[in-house]
Order: sequence, then structure tokens, then C-alpha cells
Amino acid sequence: MKTAEINIGVVGLGLMGSSIAVSLLIAGHKVKGIAPIPEDKMIAPERIKDQLLHCQKAGLLDHPAETYLSRLTITEDYGQLNDCGVVVECVIEKDDIKEQVYQKIVSNVGSEVIIASNTSAIPISSLQQYIGNPERFLGIHWAEPAYATRFLEITCGKHTSPKKARWVFDLAHLWGKEPTLLKKDIRGFITNRLMYSVYREGLSMVEKGEASLEDIDKSFRYDEGSWITLMGIFRRMDMMGLKNYMETFKTVFPKLSNSENIPAIMQKMLEINAKGIQNSKGLYPYKDGEAKAWEEAFSLFNKDIYLLADEYSQNNAEILK
Amino acid sequence: MKTAEINIGVVGLGLMGSSIAVSLLIAGHKVKGIAPIPEDKMIAPERIKDQLLHCQKAGLLDHPAETYLSRLTITEDYGQLNDCGVVVECVIEKDDIKEQVYQKIVSNVGSEVIIASNTSAIPISSLQQYIGNPERFLGIHWAEPAYATRFLEITCGKHTSPKKARWVFDLAHLWGKEPTLLKKDIRGFITNRLMYSVYREGLSMVEKGEASLEDIDKSFRYDEGSWITLMGIFRRMDMMGLKNYMETFKTVFPKLSNSENIPAIMQKMLEINAKGIQNSKGLYPYKDGEAKAWEEAFSLFNKDIYLLADEYSQNNAEILK
Repeated sequence: MKTAEINIGVVGLGLMGSSIAVSLLIAGHKVKGIAPIPEDKMIAPERIKDQLLHCQKAGLLDHPAETYLSRLTITEDYGQLNDCGVVVECVIEKDDIKEQVYQKIVSNVGSEVIIASNTSAIPISSLQQYIGNPERFLGIHWAEPAYATRFLEITCGKHTSPKKARWVFDLAHLWGKEPTLLKKDIRGFITNRLMYSVYREGLSMVEKGEASLEDIDKSFRYDEGSWITLMGIFRRMDMMGLKNYMETFKTVFPKLSNSENIPAIMQKMLEINAKGIQNSKGLYPYKDGEAKAWEEAFSLFNKDIYLLADEYSQNNAEILK
Repeated sequence: MKTAEINIGVVGLGLMGSSIAVSLLIAGHKVKGIAPIPEDKMIAPERIKDQLLHCQKAGLLDHPAETYLSRLTITEDYGQLNDCGVVVECVIEKDDIKEQVYQKIVSNVGSEVIIASNTSAIPISSLQQYIGNPERFLGIHWAEPAYATRFLEITCGKHTSPKKARWVFDLAHLWGKEPTLLKKDIRGFITNRLMYSVYREGLSMVEKGEASLEDIDKSFRYDEGSWITLMGIFRRMDMMGLKNYMETFKTVFPKLSNSENIPAIMQKMLEINAKGIQNSKGLYPYKDGEAKAWEEAFSLFNKDIYLLADEYSQNNAEILK
């Protein structure tokens, strides 16, 4: 069976689920979208269509948007999953709800079918206990928007079969991803652990009055931003010649924040019910229309950086063979 | 006096100094390059010319490369600094050598002339003790290559005049930079503190066998890389809706590395005299020609991301007014 002939189920059609469905449709799969929440069942078709049209406009599609749309089923009937080879769960990050969802998935698919969670908060080994034949369960973690980012984090739980994880890893390349495969189920996964170390340090600098939010963001945009997409952090060290880092490790490590506390600035955000650009209340102030403008800028930028990243991954593959 | 009519001295014409000279030439300044090391005096003119030609080819110049070259003087005579309004020191990161260099600078310029260091390792307040009229001394920290990155970190020492720092901050915008202004002289500056928190966590994950170098780099390239240049880390939180971070802070902070030790993998690099792509020995293995290919890829990528970053900073400025 050709890989594109595998049908894939997506359970949960919120923001993330819709965007994952689009990513899988573009890769050529038939997608069975299960919408356990009636509101999502109503909104998802339009959202997915909009995203496909956006991809079409951005030149990311081989065929017209309608071709992909015709391969999508949206339903609340878990029975529709019966011809799927892979099912991806992306419902809310609540343990008990996921447990219920898994029961419904398991009872509607064969014992060989891969079941995956898009969670970035709950350990895979912990979710695995809810799955019969747990060796076919793993984490597949997309970045938003799933159809226009190359990131994909595949995480094994305690009982995941390495062979099945490898199979998903290979499949993900056909989705246009640059997947990573995490063999241990560490809390926070790779990207969260790395990013949260930055958040800890950045928030600590803001709280101590050492630097402003704006300056920290500028530093990252124009320093790290000028190389990270090409090479990541360890290749950067090789590029810069390695030896200067040693001296700086010695002086900077002891100065870094080791705090486990929730930063006060985040507590304040919680108190004022700030949801960032969703309600124009956040770490930054937002004037009328500004939140919307950021959304639009992100949508444009995302396409540009996606194409740029691709150019360099191919170039490197050729040059660096 | 028009800003471009300010002459700028660059003391130290190694890799970084040459690239800073190019950046200032492109901005329209006459540059007095002081080469205290005879080898640099010999190599620097060719290197600066090559970099200007590279910029010309990349479409970053308004005039032919020769126009800029004709505004450059390279000499070992500190007396040539006498008509400079700003002098930037970028010699080796050794306290005693910097002290000697400052004595020569100070005795050849007026007491009002701004003197700056490109250091990223020695506190500005500590260097400031070597300067008469220390209120005119500050840090101006470029990223490499200085002529094709928008990053610039301006750091005040204990005695720096805020007014003079502000003047440099404004000037830096005319250099095509997106400068940050750090009012406190914290060890490690903004970008080092943030990046070293990532290095600490990333190296700790590698040492524990939780993830490979390659996977960590991939995560950063394709996840963080897909948004960092547009928005930085705090705007990202606003974009993602803020509230999910709280839960993850609680679970991830206690798992992060708090180590102050030099990671074993770095000790090993020191022992085998690894200098990354400079000697094809590094965290990654390098086959014949591979190190060179990475250098070329970086040079190309740098131009592309520089132009992309510019597009979005202008767009945002317009949209988000």
C-alpha cells in the first residue's frame, strides 16, 4: 500500500486539530476528522477550507484546494475511523477527557493501528496506560500552524515499539516535516525544555529590571534570528569556533536564574484574564486592530520562513553530502 | 554636523573589527581603522574589500564598493583618531591589553569623544575605570557579520551618561540596526544570558541521553526558527494566548538544569583542540569540504534572513502604527 493511501483520523478539530488535518490532507491522505464538540463540527469545515485556500494562495499546493477538501470527512461518529491506519488525538489537555476519547478510538480501530497524541503537556507513558496494545501509542507533536511548519516531535512512551516510532518518523518525512525522535519520555519534550529555559531567564531579567520585554525580543529577533533557522544551537557553536564558549560558560552559568516559581508578571496576566492577542490584553499593550495585524503578519511571515527553511535544507543536503 | 560626517575609529581589525568597519562604511562614515597587530594591518584591507564586494553582490550597497573603500584609512598610528567622534575598541578579550589600548585612545582624542568596547565578556563598568571622563564610555556589541545583522547591544556601565547612551542608540538606527539599550551592566548582556540558558539545558539533555545534538538543533531550526525573527519570545506568548504557559511553567521549571559545571562534552572538545569548522573538528563531524560548505551556506542565508527581517520590521511599523 502506498503511504498516501493510508487514511488518517484526527480526533478533536479545534484550532490545532484543524491545522493538523490540513497538513495531512496536503500530504495526500484521506482524513477522517472526528469532532466530539458540536461547535467544532460546525466551525471546522470552514476553518479547514480557509486554511487550504491560504495554502493555495501561498503556492504550497500541487492541486486545487477542492481536490484536498474532497478527501476530508468531518463527523462525530468514531465508527468512521475503522479504515484508518493512524489516528491522531488532539483534544484538550485534560487527562480524564483524553482517557474517554482513547476508549472510543480503541474500540473502533484494529489492534495494529497507530494511535498518537499531539499533547505537549502530559507524559506519553502516562497516557499509554489507557490504550490496549500500548506499543502502538506515541506522541506526535506539531507546531502551529501545522501545515506551514517543518517541526514535528515524535515521542516514545515507556511501552512504545521503536519500530513503530521509526515507521512514523519515516512517514513524517513524506508530510514535508523535519521530525525529531525522542526515545525517552522526558517531561516537557525537547522544544518545551529548551524554550522554557529561555522563558525562565528572560522573565527573571525583566523582573529584576535588567532589560525590558522589548529589548529581549529584539535581541532574539535580530541576533539568534539571524542564524537559528539555518543551523540550530550546536552547529552555531561549531561555526563560531567553540573555544570562546568555555570561558563564558564559567562566568555566565552561575548568573542564570534557577527559579522554580511562577514569575510575578505571569501571575498578573492571570489576574487580569490576559489572553494575549486573543483579547488584546497581554505582556504587550494592543491598540485597536493591532492584534489582528500581528496575526496577519505571522501568517505572511510563516510562509516566507517556511520556504526559506526549505531552500537551505535542500541546499545543505546537496552541498553537504 | 550631519551624522554621516562623524568619523569613526575602529581599533583592532581582526575578524570582528573588519566586519564592524564595513558596517560603519556602509552607513556612510569615514572610518579610521587602527591595526595594533601587524598581521591584521596586512590582512584587513583585503578582507574589508572582499566583504564590501560581497555586500555589493548581495544588493546591500547604494554606491559602488570603491566609494566606501575610499573613505577608509588603515594605520597603526593612534594619532589618526584625532578627528573621530566615536572610537570602537574590538581587540582581544584580555583586560590588560584593553587597558593599554584605552590609554592610547584617550591620549589621542578629545574628552567628549565617545569610546566604546565591542566586548561580550568583560563588564563595561570594569573597563570604564581605564577611561578618563568615563561617562562617555559604553558597550556597543555587534553580531558577526556586523554588516549583515540588525542586532546591536548597547550597554551602559556604572558611570555612563544616559544621554550619551541615548545618542549612540539613535545613531545606531542610522546604521540600519535594531539596537537594544541595556541600562544595567549585567554580566553576560542580554543575548548571552538568554542563549547560555539554552546551552545549559541543551547540553544537559545531550549528557543525560535524552536527545541528540541533531534533534535539538532540528527542534530549534524548525520550531523556534519559524517565528523568532518576526516576534521574539514574549510576543510569541501573546500570540499563543498566554494562559497555557502557566501550567507548563509549573511542570517544566523544576525539571530544568541548574548546573554551574562545564559540561563534559565541552571538556572533551577542549582536550582534542576542537575549533569547530575552523579546523573541521567539533561537536559535529566534518568531512572534506563540509566546513567550507557550511561557511558558504551561512553567508548566503545571512543575506536572505537580513532582507526578510527588514521586510517585516518595515511592514510591522506600518501596519502596527
